[in-house]
Amino acid sequence: MPVGTAATVKAMTVDQVKDAGADIILGNTYHLNLRPGSELVRDLGGLHKFMGWHGPILTDSGGFQVFSLAKLRDIRDDGIAFQSHIDGAKLFLGPREVMTIQQNLGSDIAMVIDECPPWPCSREDCRAAVDRSYRWAKQCRQIATDNGFLASGHHVFAIAQGSTFDDLRREAAESLAALDFPGYAVGGVSVGEPEPEMLKQVAATTPFMPADKPRYTMGLGTPPQILKMIALGVDMFDCVHPTRVARNGAAFTPDGLINLRNERYRTDPNPLVEGLANYTAGFSRAYLRHLVMAGEILASTLLTIHNVHFYLDLVSQARAHIEAGDFSVWSQAWIARYEAGG
Amino acid sequence: MPVGTAATVKAMTVDQVKDAGADIILGNTYHLNLRPGSELVRDLGGLHKFMGWHGPILTDSGGFQVFSLAKLRDIRDDGIAFQSHIDGAKLFLGPREVMTIQQNLGSDIAMVIDECPPWPCSREDCRAAVDRSYRWAKQCRQIATDNGFLASGHHVFAIAQGSTFDDLRREAAESLAALDFPGYAVGGVSVGEPEPEMLKQVAATTPFMPADKPRYTMGLGTPPQILKMIALGVDMFDCVHPTRVARNGAAFTPDGLINLRNERYRTDPNPLVEGLANYTAGFSRAYLRHLVMAGEILASTLLTIHNVHFYLDLVSQARAHIEAGDFSVWSQAWIARYEAGG
Repeated sequence: MPVGTAATVKAMTVDQVKDAGADIILGNTYHLNLRPGSELVRDLGGLHKFMGWHGPILTDSGGFQVFSLAKLRDIRDDGIAFQSHIDGAKLFLGPREVMTIQQNLGSDIAMVIDECPPWPCSREDCRAAVDRSYRWAKQCRQIATDNGFLASGHHVFAIAQGSTFDDLRREAAESLAALDFPGYAVGGVSVGEPEPEMLKQVAATTPFMPADKPRYTMGLGTPPQILKMIALGVDMFDCVHPTRVARNGAAFTPDGLINLRNERYRTDPNPLVEGLANYTAGFSRAYLRHLVMAGEILASTLLTIHNVHFYLDLVSQARAHIEAGDFSVWSQAWIARYEAGG
Repeated sequence: MPVGTAATVKAMTVDQVKDAGADIILGNTYHLNLRPGSELVRDLGGLHKFMGWHGPILTDSGGFQVFSLAKLRDIRDDGIAFQSHIDGAKLFLGPREVMTIQQNLGSDIAMVIDECPPWPCSREDCRAAVDRSYRWAKQCRQIATDNGFLASGHHVFAIAQGSTFDDLRREAAESLAALDFPGYAVGGVSVGEPEPEMLKQVAATTPFMPADKPRYTMGLGTPPQILKMIALGVDMFDCVHPTRVARNGAAFTPDGLINLRNERYRTDPNPLVEGLANYTAGFSRAYLRHLVMAGEILASTLLTIHNVHFYLDLVSQARAHIEAGDFSVWSQAWIARYEAGG
């Protein structure tokens, strides 16, 4: 899922997002609630109409952003009190608030609010976060039932925490699975831990989630990480990585990430990736480098189109290789080439 | 002509430029020569191929930018020595240089180099600028003949100076007209003079240019100014105004320029201009305002699409009213509504 934090996948029109192959995008509850406000979005017909995206939208609960962005947060049993990172306003997000906001937005898939412990954290703190996240997940589902959100065709996904404690990961996944959500996320990863630790946590969680429901790692990852997580049974991803590096002048290729600021691309007449058919493929690396060096907005747009398409093409290839039965061989070769560089 | 200073109409893809109704765009020789360099563009197949724009391109000579942007310029009979505003490099532009650069770029319409006197200027200085501009125009055309630029289907337009001196304006226009260029620009306007003075200068020039050739005011103007200059016989315009104000969060409407930062648009469900059919019309003012307030790149893109289309639609209306014979009545009513505001 390309990330459309503030009701836009940064630097792209919704048509460009669609043309890049996206079926679903992610919106950030924390940001949209602060600006423009979920009631405004509701009054204007919901997030789909507001931003002109007519495919499915998944929204996170905002909890993760409170942990990563907000100031002076206070975690209580009924939710999280915090100050806006924009204007310092005192705010509160609990199960009722996040479900109301996501209902206002009209999310197709709403995420439960959870407590994301830092890395590393003590077993005691992790235990408390897992228990609190479980209670909040139940409350979120109850609220979504009571207010008609589920009955009107929307969905709520659960999030399993557990940090580095395998038994708590398993417990979180199994206890949520028993509640029969239509989808499950692995939470609390990509919070500063090294990649082997992150993969270990995913591997400790996915086996205890239903294999016939979508399994989702939130906020991940690099192209090799995506493939490694697919091997662990993950079906869904969201990540700002492809759009963010695009705005810094970098593009993904099968031979690694390239920085267009590099002098070597000054006269390069080739497209970013030979044979990758998207709008950006109509332009030379030399032109894209020129746009980056000149600080042109079009550099961000063209590189974002390329990077988002590169990711979507990668998972499309992965899907085909899973169906063909050679995913493991293919993905290892793909990663080896990517990590060897150009 | 939308302005594509650095091989991009800022914040738009070439497809968006085309969809907005543009038939021709302008490129800036001064900028393209500094970055990425005209020889690089030539080696990559010319400006059309480099930026993916397959319609006509007019390039200015770079002379005006030397006057407005460069440091420490020294005007000599053979050209202008100056320092780059980017890195301070010592550079020189004379008739040979500007024609070579524009040939490298592959411009469909190249402009002659001219001396643009400041406003106000003395008669003596203006006299010298008119004489020098005339000599340079002749030299530019000779160079374009000798190097095959004209024979290969490209064109060179002349530029008439004369500042606020009506007789010098007339002399400049008539002497250039005698050289039989395929098009003529009114130069030395929009250099700080008040609008009535600018219009007076245009009015003092266009009657002495052939009416059956394109007459062009460079670097102008606001929507009312465009209509006022059409009334004076002007056929072509270029201006950064619509693209620049878009990036500042402002949009043109028949009731004047509106600033989307204004609180009044916070919940406004309407498009920028009812009935103006372009991509941006699919979004509410409230959404556009949100993007502007959030500093999103998409704000620049959507507002630029709207503003460029607004300008092109305006001149298209003007053309229809000229053909219908009611241009004068229509344009006065249009200007009155625009200046009265919403």
